[in-house]
Amino acid sequence: MNKASLQAKFALIHEHWRPKVVAELNGQELKLVKFAGVFPWHQHEQADEVFLVWRGQMTIELRDRRVILQAGEFCVVPRGVEHRTMADAEVEVLVFEPAHTRNTGNIVDETFTAPNGVEV
Amino acid sequence: MNKASLQAKFALIHEHWRPKVVAELNGQELKLVKFAGVFPWHQHEQADEVFLVWRGQMTIELRDRRVILQAGEFCVVPRGVEHRTMADAEVEVLVFEPAHTRNTGNIVDETFTAPNGVEV
Repeated sequence: MNKASLQAKFALIHEHWRPKVVAELNGQELKLVKFAGVFPWHQHEQADEVFLVWRGQMTIELRDRRVILQAGEFCVVPRGVEHRTMADAEVEVLVFEPAHTRNTGNIVDETFTAPNGVEV
Repeated sequence: MNKASLQAKFALIHEHWRPKVVAELNGQELKLVKFAGVFPWHQHEQADEVFLVWRGQMTIELRDRRVILQAGEFCVVPRGVEHRTMADAEVEVLVFEPAHTRNTGNIVDETFTAPNGVEV
């Protein structure tokens, strides 16, 4: 049971689109992820997920609209809702979702599907 | 499914020690709370909880030590661990824990026990 700093943890992340687990509780994981560019369309059948932007700006694209999140803004994507994330410039994001949720949900992508449970 | 701003949500909170729900997902709640002063000792038998400081500084006191959290720092208090929170000056904190977790855990306190499920 130790404290940690978001800034320090993000500084240890040198890959895009590879979520890193910084805390596990109640069967959920708090993950940090850095990314830029466009992620594949996908959905999580059994997992709601919340995105909270720590630094930068990201977009959550849904099939019918886009949600733009600035630093300090958050949004829940409910289970079963198809979405993709994107950012013009590198963004730092907190994700909170059930442990062992695959980042690409119902698809497997050679480039984007990340290993689960990697801590930082 | 709408975005929200932490700053805007915190601006709507005018009470201390009264967590407000800003998102519910996977049976968990993301809550915001403002406080200053000292909270009663308690524990949550079935709930781990994470505290993430958004603005200010807080202390989590355990029976054998204190954890001081600055803005951008977080700490998980595992279930069953007795603790109390405190702050010299008003602090803004995100809490993530199972829905319907009583803020005072195993105790009921006339002043500090807050109603559950209040949204902001």
